[in-house]
Amino acid sequence: MKVLVTGATGFVGQHLIPQLLARGHTVTAVARNPSKARGFDWYEHVHFIACDIYQPRENVFQFFGLPDVVIHLAWEGLPNYKELFHFERNLFADYLFIKSLVEGGARHLLITGTCFEYGMRNGCLSEDMPSLPGNPYALAKDTLRKFVEVLPQKQDITFQWARLFYMYGNGQNQNSLIAQLDRAIDSGDPVFNMSGGEQLRDYLPVEDVATKLVNLMEHPQCTGIVNICSGEPISVRRLVEQHLAQRESHIRLNIGYYPYPDYEPMAFWGDAKKFSSITGER
Amino acid sequence: MKVLVTGATGFVGQHLIPQLLARGHTVTAVARNPSKARGFDWYEHVHFIACDIYQPRENVFQFFGLPDVVIHLAWEGLPNYKELFHFERNLFADYLFIKSLVEGGARHLLITGTCFEYGMRNGCLSEDMPSLPGNPYALAKDTLRKFVEVLPQKQDITFQWARLFYMYGNGQNQNSLIAQLDRAIDSGDPVFNMSGGEQLRDYLPVEDVATKLVNLMEHPQCTGIVNICSGEPISVRRLVEQHLAQRESHIRLNIGYYPYPDYEPMAFWGDAKKFSSITGER
Repeated sequence: MKVLVTGATGFVGQHLIPQLLARGHTVTAVARNPSKARGFDWYEHVHFIACDIYQPRENVFQFFGLPDVVIHLAWEGLPNYKELFHFERNLFADYLFIKSLVEGGARHLLITGTCFEYGMRNGCLSEDMPSLPGNPYALAKDTLRKFVEVLPQKQDITFQWARLFYMYGNGQNQNSLIAQLDRAIDSGDPVFNMSGGEQLRDYLPVEDVATKLVNLMEHPQCTGIVNICSGEPISVRRLVEQHLAQRESHIRLNIGYYPYPDYEPMAFWGDAKKFSSITGER
Repeated sequence: MKVLVTGATGFVGQHLIPQLLARGHTVTAVARNPSKARGFDWYEHVHFIACDIYQPRENVFQFFGLPDVVIHLAWEGLPNYKELFHFERNLFADYLFIKSLVEGGARHLLITGTCFEYGMRNGCLSEDMPSLPGNPYALAKDTLRKFVEVLPQKQDITFQWARLFYMYGNGQNQNSLIAQLDRAIDSGDPVFNMSGGEQLRDYLPVEDVATKLVNLMEHPQCTGIVNICSGEPISVRRLVEQHLAQRESHIRLNIGYYPYPDYEPMAFWGDAKKFSSITGER
C-alpha cells in the first residue's frame, strides 16, 4: 500500500518506516527537517517531503500523492503535557489538516492518541471506557478524535485511533526515564535519582509499538480506538532494574528521590484484548 | 452584585435580566443588536452595551466594567446542532473570550451548557456521569467546559456550568415544538403534525430556568456542572396536551407524522438533586 507517514523523524516514525518498508509498502515520509531525515537508513527508500504539514495548501491529499493510508504521528511540542498550546494551537491546526485530507478523498486514517486520554484512572483501561483527559495534551488529542469522528463522510472512511501507552528505545525524548538512565550509565554516574518506582505502567519497546501499528494498519476492520500496549502492568522499579541488568550496570538507584507526578494515576495499564482479538497478535 | 449578562436578548437572557433586577442586582447587558434590546421592559434598567463579545479587545474584563459575576449565555447559530461551525468557529472564539475575562481578573463565571453533553444516553442523567456528546453543538460546549477547567488560575475562581435541559416560553426559537404548536393554534390550523410523542424529556418554563440561574449564581459554593432541570420526565405528547388544555385549543394532533430525531435519546431527564440540595430549591 501507499502509506503517508507524518512525523516521520519523530520517536515512533523513525522506527515505523523501516517496518513498513520491510512489509513491502511504499512510503511517503513527511517531516520538517530534511537533514535529520537524511540521518536514517530508510531515507533512500522513501519518498521524502520536507514541509510543515500545517501550512495551508490547495489540495492536501493530492499534494501528498493520494496515499492509500495516512499514518498521522506528527504533534508539536511534546512532552510538556500541561501547556495550553496543545489545545490552543495544535488541536485546530491538526484538525484542519485531517479535515482537508478527508475532503480530498483520504479513505484510511490511522492517527495516534495517548493513554492519558483515560485520565486519572487506575487499573486496566479498555477502549469502551469514556475518556476523562486530565491534562491539556490529552484533552487536545481526545478532542481531536471527537472532532474527526463527527466529520461528515462523503464515503466510508477507515478511522483507526491508536492509543499509545509508554514506550522506550532509541530516539526517545531525552527527559524520559530510560533515556535519563542510559545517560547516567554512559556518563559513569554512581547514583541514579528516581521516584519511588512502585507505579504500575504499561511499557513497550518502541520497535514493538511500530510492529503493532503496521499490524493495525493491515487490519482495517479494526476501527475506532485501539490500545497499543503490552497489556501487562510492570512497576517502574522493575522496568529500571531489568534495564540495568540488560546493560550490566551497577549504578545505585536512589529510590524515592523524586515525588510521583501529579498528572498520572498510580497504577494503570492497557487492555490489549481488542488489538489481539482482531490482529491475532499478542 | 454587579452582573454581566452576555446573550442578553436571547431566549434565556431576556427572561433572566428582569429576575436579576428584581433581586436587587446591577446588570450590564450585552448583545449585538441594540434595537432588539430596546424592545424589552428591562432595557431602561440595565447598562446596555451593544457589541460583538468575540471581537478582540485589550482588556475585556475592564471593558465590561469589572463585574462580580459573568453570566455567559451567548452562543451563535442555535439550534442547528449538527453544524460544524459550533466547534470550528464558536468554540475557540468563546474560549478566548472567557480566557481573557479570567486573565483580566474575573472571579465568578456562570456559563450555560446543554443536556446534549450527556449524549445518546437514556434515563436519569446526573452530573457525575462522564459526558459523551453526540452532536457538534454538544461537543463544542463540552469541550469549552474542559478547556476552561484546565485554564491556569491566578486566584480561586467560582466556575458554575449550568447544563440546561428543555425549555419553552416567549422568545423561543420558532422551530421549537411549543412555538410551532402556538403558531398552528394562532393560525387556526385544524391539524398539528408531530412525532410519536412518547419520548420522555425534561421541560421547564423559561422563567423557571431564569429563576434557577439566579439562585445558582447566589450560591457560589455550588460549583462545577449543575443540571438546570425539573427532575421529572414528561412525555412530549403529555406536554403538548397540557399546553392545548391551557390554551383551550381543540387542534387535532397528527401523532406519528414525524420520525423521532436521530440525535436525541428516546427517554432522558435530569437529576435535580445537586441543585436542590445546595440551593434548597426544588
